[in-house]
Amino acid sequence: MLARLKQFLKDQKLDFLLLPNSDQFFSEYLPENEKRIEWLTGFTGSNATVIFGQEKSYFFTDGRYILQAKNQLDLNEFEIFNLAETPLLSKIPTGAKLGVDPALTSVTFAKNLQKKFPLIEFVETAEIFSSKQKHLAATNSAKSYFSLSDKVTGTDSETKIAQLLQDLGTDAILITKPENICWLLNIRGRDLEFTPIFLTYAILTKNGEITLFRDQIPDLKNKIKSIQIDESSTNYWLHRQLEKSGFELVNKNDPIDLLKSPKNPTEIFGAIKAHEEDGLAVTKFLFWLSQQSESDEISAAKKLLEFRQESPNFFSESFAAISGFASNGAIIHYHSTNETNKKISGDSLYLIDSGGQYLGEDFCGTTDITRTVAIGNPSAEMIENFTRVLKGHIAIARAKFPRGTSGAQLDILAREHLWRAELNYDHGTGHGVGSFLSVHEGPCAISKRGHQELLCGMILSNEPGFYKDGEYGIRIENLLLIEESEQKNFIQFRTLTLAPIDPKLIDFKMLTYPEKKWLASYHNEILQKFSGRLDGKNFDWLSAIAKTFLEKL
Amino acid sequence: MLARLKQFLKDQKLDFLLLPNSDQFFSEYLPENEKRIEWLTGFTGSNATVIFGQEKSYFFTDGRYILQAKNQLDLNEFEIFNLAETPLLSKIPTGAKLGVDPALTSVTFAKNLQKKFPLIEFVETAEIFSSKQKHLAATNSAKSYFSLSDKVTGTDSETKIAQLLQDLGTDAILITKPENICWLLNIRGRDLEFTPIFLTYAILTKNGEITLFRDQIPDLKNKIKSIQIDESSTNYWLHRQLEKSGFELVNKNDPIDLLKSPKNPTEIFGAIKAHEEDGLAVTKFLFWLSQQSESDEISAAKKLLEFRQESPNFFSESFAAISGFASNGAIIHYHSTNETNKKISGDSLYLIDSGGQYLGEDFCGTTDITRTVAIGNPSAEMIENFTRVLKGHIAIARAKFPRGTSGAQLDILAREHLWRAELNYDHGTGHGVGSFLSVHEGPCAISKRGHQELLCGMILSNEPGFYKDGEYGIRIENLLLIEESEQKNFIQFRTLTLAPIDPKLIDFKMLTYPEKKWLASYHNEILQKFSGRLDGKNFDWLSAIAKTFLEKL
Repeated sequence: MLARLKQFLKDQKLDFLLLPNSDQFFSEYLPENEKRIEWLTGFTGSNATVIFGQEKSYFFTDGRYILQAKNQLDLNEFEIFNLAETPLLSKIPTGAKLGVDPALTSVTFAKNLQKKFPLIEFVETAEIFSSKQKHLAATNSAKSYFSLSDKVTGTDSETKIAQLLQDLGTDAILITKPENICWLLNIRGRDLEFTPIFLTYAILTKNGEITLFRDQIPDLKNKIKSIQIDESSTNYWLHRQLEKSGFELVNKNDPIDLLKSPKNPTEIFGAIKAHEEDGLAVTKFLFWLSQQSESDEISAAKKLLEFRQESPNFFSESFAAISGFASNGAIIHYHSTNETNKKISGDSLYLIDSGGQYLGEDFCGTTDITRTVAIGNPSAEMIENFTRVLKGHIAIARAKFPRGTSGAQLDILAREHLWRAELNYDHGTGHGVGSFLSVHEGPCAISKRGHQELLCGMILSNEPGFYKDGEYGIRIENLLLIEESEQKNFIQFRTLTLAPIDPKLIDFKMLTYPEKKWLASYHNEILQKFSGRLDGKNFDWLSAIAKTFLEKL
Repeated sequence: MLARLKQFLKDQKLDFLLLPNSDQFFSEYLPENEKRIEWLTGFTGSNATVIFGQEKSYFFTDGRYILQAKNQLDLNEFEIFNLAETPLLSKIPTGAKLGVDPALTSVTFAKNLQKKFPLIEFVETAEIFSSKQKHLAATNSAKSYFSLSDKVTGTDSETKIAQLLQDLGTDAILITKPENICWLLNIRGRDLEFTPIFLTYAILTKNGEITLFRDQIPDLKNKIKSIQIDESSTNYWLHRQLEKSGFELVNKNDPIDLLKSPKNPTEIFGAIKAHEEDGLAVTKFLFWLSQQSESDEISAAKKLLEFRQESPNFFSESFAAISGFASNGAIIHYHSTNETNKKISGDSLYLIDSGGQYLGEDFCGTTDITRTVAIGNPSAEMIENFTRVLKGHIAIARAKFPRGTSGAQLDILAREHLWRAELNYDHGTGHGVGSFLSVHEGPCAISKRGHQELLCGMILSNEPGFYKDGEYGIRIENLLLIEESEQKNFIQFRTLTLAPIDPKLIDFKMLTYPEKKWLASYHNEILQKFSGRLDGKNFDWLSAIAKTFLEKL
């Protein structure tokens, strides 16, 4: 396929072709028929942009994937760069003729490129990949959606549409994020493996008419003149089609991002139920794991999936589980393969980060949980660092803050105790989570850059960690719901996730009384919730853990 | 004078005149001959902007001053507004003819006004105030500056100028902040009561020539074409003069703000020495106060000044001391007058916030310290809240953080324990402090909005507080120096201020071991530093305090 691409460069008289690892929807998890970078380079990670040339090609990714890229790429073809060190466009001479596929590039990025490379050519690259897919929109998914009842969503689509149209200053709005269309219309789909959405665009007119489309712009010229779009999430091909059709385009952040972020009472009920189902499966898994001596990363992840599947309401995983033992646990976005699969035995830490999508009769929800457990005898250093991560986790979980506070303000609570030992972790502390939607959902976040005000009803992860390259990884992740404080003047978190934390990894001397109290009451809550839902041995195991935390008070 | 202003409105055919409480340098502490708002309205607070009209005038200030304004203003003339609730310009009809004095308005603000009020008139208002001052620049201070030796500044002026010119993209730079000119030229002055600067503008050309001026633009047309200016700190009058003279003006933040913020080793040495002198005076004062039963706010502040004056290196206070007992302590920017002066007796808290400017043979520096002490028997609530403030103070003092961290990220450490009780304080946690310069110095800050990266050598205050309206105020303020951690990978604070914290206000049960350890070692350091420098009784008193902290460990 690389030869075909080089022929394409020749035919189109291009010096370079810039190709991101992306589809026309900028999906977080690419559908099978959109994995262009994997086909061309063999690279299976998520973050990559390649600048293909006739002689030389430049492969860009982030620090997480440098090692993996070196293993998977043909180093005679590709030079590998870390985006944090080498700016993406620094390798292209200013006078070069650079090709870019407009369907795979956001308007924002395309406009930036045009400023720097006046000779830029927007070229459709579909013919390069025609052997693998008929065209970019190969999977026609428009038929595969299904509706959610109001019992499950809490707000009917008409109300959501009315809310959205309220502040609309144009004749219509283009919605390009499939998850936002799914939220607005209370529908879901099966186009992706982990996010229950179907891939579509929509135009909603001021009078409430909505048109779904994908490859063909609907004919609306007689009805509307101006359309609000979000340039950061709209691909340039679509933008050009609309411009050519003569519409006046007004650029604004997609307002659905913020509308769908604070969950309504029904969605909150759903999140709580989903976390009960999910926590039960994870608790069963952790007990099962404690009984194994011969398990490995892949079979453990499979076992956890089986426990999840015991729930009749389990829909799918919410992302590919990260199951890493010892040094593999230090790879933040690790994906175990037959080549890397480690036996879970010896003295070290095992980290498993996973989640589920749940859809029941009267609820739906999305989960995301990480537990790190001791295998054999963990070292004193592992215990000290786990305890520092735990102190940060508890500080976030216990935080109370005035309305108007952003996630950026809270972030340090999770890091303070690591920083004191001059340690840190190279990812955010928390991301927003959808309601039977994306497991990573904007616009809220707990991180240096999370400037969105935190609002009641938002659901966020709380996942500080620590990673020692080549040795072990630690992460403790629960999901949190934001709610009013009892006196209603402040807001606070309520932890939704229910699964025990390994007491063997805790140095209780490093904990304050409020921290120990939080642990005791958290495990007591789990015990109450799962009473009668676990078999005898499993419940005894859980009771013993809860008792340990009580005794340490 | 108000009648004269109204006549001026008539003569100039203006509907309104907008007048800020400002001088042409936007000085934080106004010189006596610049107090226009006080002359016109009787208001003595610092923050005020008045929109004078023929019939009605609108007086805007912030929450701190609403009560004071109501007492000082003629309510038949003035309607009072809180800027947090009513936008400044909302009271002026769009079509109105609005007058603004260009010398008292920044370019940034003037440009905003022009967008909203096309009929704006820039009018010099000097004639209104001619009875009080000959003209706006009445005090000719150009002669009153003095030089600082390199022994005291650590860097000679030539080096500073070379550093500044290094990145200059224009033929010259206009410097409008007098403190920045004083820093650059290693000079100081006595134009203001608390900040040892003299008021001037400067133009520095690319070849290193510097011209100071104030009312008359120097003739540089043959030498330079383009000038870099900072529109946010340049008044519109000056900007117009330069424009009229045909210069090309390029707007950029004044680079000196960031150049002078990280102190060099000599300035750091000076800060440490100044804090020893100052801490000794405050310690003497706190002992003296503990022996009084009949003192009052004004006489106590006077006594503290006398203790400071015992140092031969004391130059002046760095701001007007805030000396408030009981309910007066709850007024954040309180200034005691004969009318409000309270006796310091009974059961409550006394808060004193003060500072000094020091200039010795081989050092100079600026201090700022707040202590809150128990008078009589403080209530359990006071003790609990003081302890919460103290926990925040210690968390900032002990913080360690990676390079690249901003003050905005740290701020929550000071508030976390207050927030848990749904309490807060309505001011930032810390401001930058100059080196024998302004006690409030940008661009660094510890606050929600403090996005400047914290750098080694910066000096900041650490001053969390709590204020119960009508009852009492709590604030604990030390200055901090940023320095490298021992392993040099992280940065951390070193507390510069040396004066005891009242143990009677601490609930030791609420403190963690590291917090108690910090208190014990802080007081031990004070004891060591002041050994041999206090009289017997005073030293015994200090020793007893230090011992208390040791025993609580």
